[in-house]
Amino acid sequence: MGYEVDVAIVGAGKTPFGAFPAEGLRALAVEAGEKALADAQCAPDAIQAFYLGNFAGPEFTGQNHLAPYISTALGMDGIPSTRFEAACASSGAAFFHAFMAVSSGIYDCVMVLGVEKMTSQSTARVTEILCGAGDWAEEMRAGSTFPSLFAMIARRHMHDFGTTREHLAAVAVKNHENGALNPDAQMRKVITLEQAMNSKPIAEPLNLYDCSLISDGAAAVIISAGDRARRYTDKPVSVLGIAQASDHVALDQKADITTFPAVQRAARKAYAMAGLGPQEIDFAELHDCFTIAELVAMEDLGFVGRGRAGFFTADGGSRRNGALPINASGGLKSKGHPVGATGIAQICDVVQQLRGEAGERQLKRHSIGLAQNLGGSGGTCVVTILGQE
Amino acid sequence: MGYEVDVAIVGAGKTPFGAFPAEGLRALAVEAGEKALADAQCAPDAIQAFYLGNFAGPEFTGQNHLAPYISTALGMDGIPSTRFEAACASSGAAFFHAFMAVSSGIYDCVMVLGVEKMTSQSTARVTEILCGAGDWAEEMRAGSTFPSLFAMIARRHMHDFGTTREHLAAVAVKNHENGALNPDAQMRKVITLEQAMNSKPIAEPLNLYDCSLISDGAAAVIISAGDRARRYTDKPVSVLGIAQASDHVALDQKADITTFPAVQRAARKAYAMAGLGPQEIDFAELHDCFTIAELVAMEDLGFVGRGRAGFFTADGGSRRNGALPINASGGLKSKGHPVGATGIAQICDVVQQLRGEAGERQLKRHSIGLAQNLGGSGGTCVVTILGQE
Repeated sequence: MGYEVDVAIVGAGKTPFGAFPAEGLRALAVEAGEKALADAQCAPDAIQAFYLGNFAGPEFTGQNHLAPYISTALGMDGIPSTRFEAACASSGAAFFHAFMAVSSGIYDCVMVLGVEKMTSQSTARVTEILCGAGDWAEEMRAGSTFPSLFAMIARRHMHDFGTTREHLAAVAVKNHENGALNPDAQMRKVITLEQAMNSKPIAEPLNLYDCSLISDGAAAVIISAGDRARRYTDKPVSVLGIAQASDHVALDQKADITTFPAVQRAARKAYAMAGLGPQEIDFAELHDCFTIAELVAMEDLGFVGRGRAGFFTADGGSRRNGALPINASGGLKSKGHPVGATGIAQICDVVQQLRGEAGERQLKRHSIGLAQNLGGSGGTCVVTILGQE
Repeated sequence: MGYEVDVAIVGAGKTPFGAFPAEGLRALAVEAGEKALADAQCAPDAIQAFYLGNFAGPEFTGQNHLAPYISTALGMDGIPSTRFEAACASSGAAFFHAFMAVSSGIYDCVMVLGVEKMTSQSTARVTEILCGAGDWAEEMRAGSTFPSLFAMIARRHMHDFGTTREHLAAVAVKNHENGALNPDAQMRKVITLEQAMNSKPIAEPLNLYDCSLISDGAAAVIISAGDRARRYTDKPVSVLGIAQASDHVALDQKADITTFPAVQRAARKAYAMAGLGPQEIDFAELHDCFTIAELVAMEDLGFVGRGRAGFFTADGGSRRNGALPINASGGLKSKGHPVGATGIAQICDVVQQLRGEAGERQLKRHSIGLAQNLGGSGGTCVVTILGQE
């Protein structure tokens, strides 16, 4: 009982990420969904349930009840269609629940799709909507925003471990270097350490290049029972381990703001399920909503020792030719961060590497990849470990 | 594989429904959750996952990322905590997914909670937020609201089947009669057929007493694997059948607006799983967001023939002493309709009857009960059949 059936990703599809004034939320979702169906050579009526990750569609666009609104547009009529919301980990959470249903034998084939349409609102309004992922009545009403929360985390990390502004900037430089090679990335632009260090301050010590982008986009995968995977694709990708965990939504409820217990919990469970440790992960897509978030994630996932992530990054350890490549896609920083799409987009990026289809960004070692999707300032985390079959 | 484990409801708790200016969304949720824990004599740390149904908390209150925000306040730290949104069927959908995880052996014990805090907004703003459950860019932008959509359904039902204003009013009179006996109901007031017929028009042929209420409230249940149920309670309630189905969100995409395919699909599956037919259901809690919705649901669930629900109701067939009591709780009409709480509240009301704990509203035959939770104008439906163990 429980996770009995091996689960495989048999199709993946994404829209480019960016600002697309002419494309509504549903059009973006349908584009990604149709690409995933085509990739799996799968007809819409083979899909038995629809799992949608979306953070704030109603606030960004007015439209709620989004799951059947999208599934019917994809020609998948009548099936259970449900929206999952877990802040920026919304589509990671949708993927986790879809995995559970397939791995327990309830469904043979389902679609998981993440979407967000953010750029139709002003930056001020986007910031306000995003504040809903934190503690609205307390921290946010008191004037905090996500940049200021992560700025506090960065400052504490610097104080406790000797992390520097250069370390943070090294994350941005690396992710831009990778994203410049990604045809679907929102900001395909190489930047220098000097540019990253000297850009406009947002919430010190974070400046413009420490922050991810406001984006429109969608991403979808089709997952099936492992023994059926080769009906759909010659390159199935196996889900080796997965877990979702939670923690306080408010940063001020945490004993130590330089570590996220939800990430540690999800990682521990996902590693145990996969029978793997951090040293066996070939590459990872981490949730770099801010540069400091990538560093904290590296530590919470056990990739490096506590307080070492900045040094490791500045030494080039997480570059594409480093010991552990991180965010070879460009990450949220350069690829873009349509919040509800991000979890599935990370999984699509891991799938692309595992299949050896990442073009100029293709990594040498690409047998086992990890995706880490964070909600808010650590209230939710989903960790997924994928491998070549 | 699949639904292998029998699933039981081992605890249930609700807040009263009404307008509670002093109580925030989280306080309401915590009250219901703590009541359910107490009812199951269950410690928070026995709960392995948290399933939250909520439709529009972010729009009503500013707070998003609601699942860990609530689960941590209930002392359930670290566990997977996820919000499910499916319009007015949000907590029905949460219950369906929780059921799947327990019935497949992944978890032994989880909490499902529904909550909505609506009365802090103006009626105009509430109406606008609710419009997000329909097709915002098309029908709603063109001036429709939910009362006007259901008014069209009512008018068509009258035209096709001879349903009358008296039939609709009979639904309201019956549900108020029941709700007057429910200490947790928002509107505990008996009304006459004349009052119902002559109240203020909202969207003709629907008037004030044809419409459900704007409410604050929360409801929670704890479900466990059946073989563990008696650790928690002497009166476990079994989930005999359950299904979730979907359809177009826009009413104008439906071939026939007097029937909801999502209800028929979910009912067919739930009956098949339970090995029961509509004639074996002793009583039901139906989604009477408008009086006409109760009539259409009765027909789609097979309780009466097509077009017969109005006549059956006017003849008293769905009163507490009738052949098939419907909404003995008072229904959404009198009990209140805090949207995201409604699906679990219906389940709590069925549980109360099955346990024989419904006081003055207790029905004579109470072995098998059905709850039907509708999203929007039929885009989502969850049907749950519960029985005494």
